Amino acid sequence: MTASLSVTFETSPEHYKHWKLTVEDHVATLAMDVREDAGLRPADYKLKLNSYDLAVDIELADVLQRLRFEHPAVHAVVVTSLKPRIFCAGANIFMLGSSGHGFKVNFCKFTNETRLGIEDMSANSGVKFLAAVNGICAGGGYELALACDEIYLVDDGSAAVSLPETPLLGVLPGTGGLTRVVDKRKVRRDVADHFSTLSEGVRGKRAVDWRFVDRVYPTSQFKQAVEKRVQELAAQSDRPASGPGITLGPLSPSIDGDVIQYTYVRGAIDRGKRTCDLTISAPDTPQPATAADFVKAGDQAWALCAFRELDDAILRLRLNEPEIGTVILRAVGDPAAVLAVDAALLANKDHWLVREIINHIRRTLKRVDLTARTFFALIEPGNAFAGTLFELALAADRAYMVDHADEANTMALSAANGGLYPMSNGLTRLQTRFLGEPDSIDRALEHADPFDAQEALEAGLVFSSPDDMDWDDEVRLAVEERTAFSPDALTGLEANLRFAGPETMETKIFGRLTAWQNWIFQRPNAVGERGALMVYGREGRPSFDWRRT
Amino acid sequence: MTASLSVTFETSPEHYKHWKLTVEDHVATLAMDVREDAGLRPADYKLKLNSYDLAVDIELADVLQRLRFEHPAVHAVVVTSLKPRIFCAGANIFMLGSSGHGFKVNFCKFTNETRLGIEDMSANSGVKFLAAVNGICAGGGYELALACDEIYLVDDGSAAVSLPETPLLGVLPGTGGLTRVVDKRKVRRDVADHFSTLSEGVRGKRAVDWRFVDRVYPTSQFKQAVEKRVQELAAQSDRPASGPGITLGPLSPSIDGDVIQYTYVRGAIDRGKRTCDLTISAPDTPQPATAADFVKAGDQAWALCAFRELDDAILRLRLNEPEIGTVILRAVGDPAAVLAVDAALLANKDHWLVREIINHIRRTLKRVDLTARTFFALIEPGNAFAGTLFELALAADRAYMVDHADEANTMALSAANGGLYPMSNGLTRLQTRFLGEPDSIDRALEHADPFDAQEALEAGLVFSSPDDMDWDDEVRLAVEERTAFSPDALTGLEANLRFAGPETMETKIFGRLTAWQNWIFQRPNAVGERGALMVYGREGRPSFDWRRT
Repeated sequence: MTASLSVTFETSPEHYKHWKLTVEDHVATLAMDVREDAGLRPADYKLKLNSYDLAVDIELADVLQRLRFEHPAVHAVVVTSLKPRIFCAGANIFMLGSSGHGFKVNFCKFTNETRLGIEDMSANSGVKFLAAVNGICAGGGYELALACDEIYLVDDGSAAVSLPETPLLGVLPGTGGLTRVVDKRKVRRDVADHFSTLSEGVRGKRAVDWRFVDRVYPTSQFKQAVEKRVQELAAQSDRPASGPGITLGPLSPSIDGDVIQYTYVRGAIDRGKRTCDLTISAPDTPQPATAADFVKAGDQAWALCAFRELDDAILRLRLNEPEIGTVILRAVGDPAAVLAVDAALLANKDHWLVREIINHIRRTLKRVDLTARTFFALIEPGNAFAGTLFELALAADRAYMVDHADEANTMALSAANGGLYPMSNGLTRLQTRFLGEPDSIDRALEHADPFDAQEALEAGLVFSSPDDMDWDDEVRLAVEERTAFSPDALTGLEANLRFAGPETMETKIFGRLTAWQNWIFQRPNAVGERGALMVYGREGRPSFDWRRT
Repeated sequence: MTASLSVTFETSPEHYKHWKLTVEDHVATLAMDVREDAGLRPADYKLKLNSYDLAVDIELADVLQRLRFEHPAVHAVVVTSLKPRIFCAGANIFMLGSSGHGFKVNFCKFTNETRLGIEDMSANSGVKFLAAVNGICAGGGYELALACDEIYLVDDGSAAVSLPETPLLGVLPGTGGLTRVVDKRKVRRDVADHFSTLSEGVRGKRAVDWRFVDRVYPTSQFKQAVEKRVQELAAQSDRPASGPGITLGPLSPSIDGDVIQYTYVRGAIDRGKRTCDLTISAPDTPQPATAADFVKAGDQAWALCAFRELDDAILRLRLNEPEIGTVILRAVGDPAAVLAVDAALLANKDHWLVREIINHIRRTLKRVDLTARTFFALIEPGNAFAGTLFELALAADRAYMVDHADEANTMALSAANGGLYPMSNGLTRLQTRFLGEPDSIDRALEHADPFDAQEALEAGLVFSSPDDMDWDDEVRLAVEERTAFSPDALTGLEANLRFAGPETMETKIFGRLTAWQNWIFQRPNAVGERGALMVYGREGRPSFDWRRT
């Protein structure tokens, strides 16, 4: 987590280079206007035609976050472009071609999370999205439109939506495009197959008939139709009444060598062991109890601040520290303070701001689920693994809890564990954990007192409860063993074991689609010297090994 | 489809080298006794410790098929081993290490289909499976046991079940193991995580407590417990009463250069175009109408014979012809004859043999869905795309139907399309196709007359209906375009577009698990010079690139 060569995920409106946000009453307009020379690596590629790289997407994620917290009156958003006759050309191909495998995979994961964040806002924040596609809308550009509730396309004889990845680049539209086309928009599979091999895409009435967009309008009527429709979408919003929003200030962690310190989160890397100690602290100051308190506390409320910090730490770890394969999770401090926060969140969950805080915690926990790192939670005396923080232990691949002879060591559940934070499979972490013994869920939730180590083990809430004599050795051995395994096998293993039970569009995007895209992203047919992704825009044609697998 | 270097998938009991089948009343015992020197490439590896390669699995698939058709009185099967203290050591590692990527992927696909075939027999043929694990049961060996309804393990102090792929080989237990552990046996994810990193596995009471096996018995009681339980399972069977079974004779296709000719199926490869013309003929002789007729016709009934041939042709294509990326599907002959077969299948669907024929057609169609080749169906005058054969057009990525000015050209549905052949997502092909417009399903099924090209297009049953003047060009261009795309991107594209709608354990195995395994199977950490799969059993330790993605 050193700053060298590292990507940071924080930005703010005064630093935006690629997006313009305007807000009028209940409607926001989010317009893409990518600065060609302001990508992450300007020397390597130019962001032409509203193509994007991670820098553009970090801004988009930030805008969405500010719409949630700073603009509570916004009920609908128009996503469009300020460039004439260009909506968005998708992820920048020269960026992809010049990026390593791990970066490509993490770039796609982040963009997927951001687009799913749009659908999360529609479902859980009551903010509806209308893509106003005013021109070329290709690949990742169309995938952005697909994440919106509805897509309006201008009918000017040239504007088209397309997924040209396969014909032009030999890869997939991997930011949810294939999944959303057949599962969200329910395009017929033969039509979707044809469309996904058509570099020029479809436009006009055919795009509507085939379900790729909802409406088309001639240029003269487009703006008006979009304005009318977004007002209708805003009227469908269930966003609660609000006063002014709160301001999301900078997190400003201090970084000292391999240690990153936020207010409530601390990450410390041990490069020799390839581990990161990630510790989250319970609140140690009075926390909001009423909705008015939450508004007053703003971004300083622990529930928001601590999970913003955790989110940031996880993102930095993913992108900047690929060799750090194991995260040792600890929660420290007063568990009663966490349980009090849970009670306050639940009591005020219909208030606009509290709802957004809960939404944010849920998304951050999903980010943990989807992080290709091993998480081991260590539950030791002084721990604060209670309620919302215990979700982190449930998100971990394993939780170890010391059974201490002399010191008290307990963990606790709260009503928050009963349904506040469903995973991407639609189940709570307790439901996923206890697929085979659903009775254990109610039994655990009805257990009003904290669990000691033996009780937690018997309730199936932790993996192992060594006594304090064995603790250090058992934990050390488990970590040493883990860090010695093939990092690829662990990534596949965790991706398969973490999401038992039903699949959803979200899990399909991260399971099926992403796994295939990762496979293709390694194949010489894409990334070899004459691979399609490498020769694009240069002279000559790709050269393929024709063997199908 | 030349014979050179090619794998054939036909075998029969008199040729078995690796499995012993004994049948006593309603119970069969299927015992693994792998001949070390009788693998596919005996010079490259020995099949020690009941490890298996494709040859062993081809036999297993054959035994299962014969249990379905030749042994209709069998209601339950014990799967065990004849080797003392060894059940099965899993897929042979030296075989994997010395196989190319495409072979590994296709080997895993076939073994997955065979294991899913066991679950299919339990669900749809009423044949229950009990794994009697009498010793070491590792990796693919445990995955075979997991496919059974129940697992009994001997408790002799050493017999254990394990999934040691990750710790020993740096790959996944990719034959459904990870999925079945959490989704079928509903093992808790932290326990599954621990287990999947434990090279020695678990045994005894712990194996039961953790849900990895159903029962353990000391050696002295094991045989008796298995015998008792399998009788109970047999009593749960819903297999209809039957007389003697039918005999599955050899298919005996004639192979002439790049043409393979069966009775009803013909495959002709064009190596220049990298295509295969695959044609299935409607029956041209009287077909069974009653259950007794079906028994009398045996393996010569068109419904069984034609789909056995199709299955064989698809398997040969997958393994032996990797460069042939596009299959042009045709059905020719009298559609009325196909519809008459459908009527006979439906009228007798509760008869044991007819049920098995329907099951076999369903599995063969699934094999098409899961084949990493593009399928284009061409519907031309003289076609027999009706009912069951129209399922092939629905399984295809696209169907083209000529709108002929002079010649009649129609296709037809039957009640068989309404539910006889669900896909692995649990939906019929019509349901998957019309996710976005479910009314179209009933409308199409109620359309009693055959559809002409315009009607089929309007009903959404075909992708395109060019007139006869444009037909040759349109089809030629579509095929030429298709065969020019990256074969990897097409594999990923098709795997994502073919399975819209719900996911099941089966689709999770082929989507999520297989895609991750394919990814890992290409990574230097597994298959590089110092990859874990390559150095296994040799001197030295694997060398990993520690970057997680």
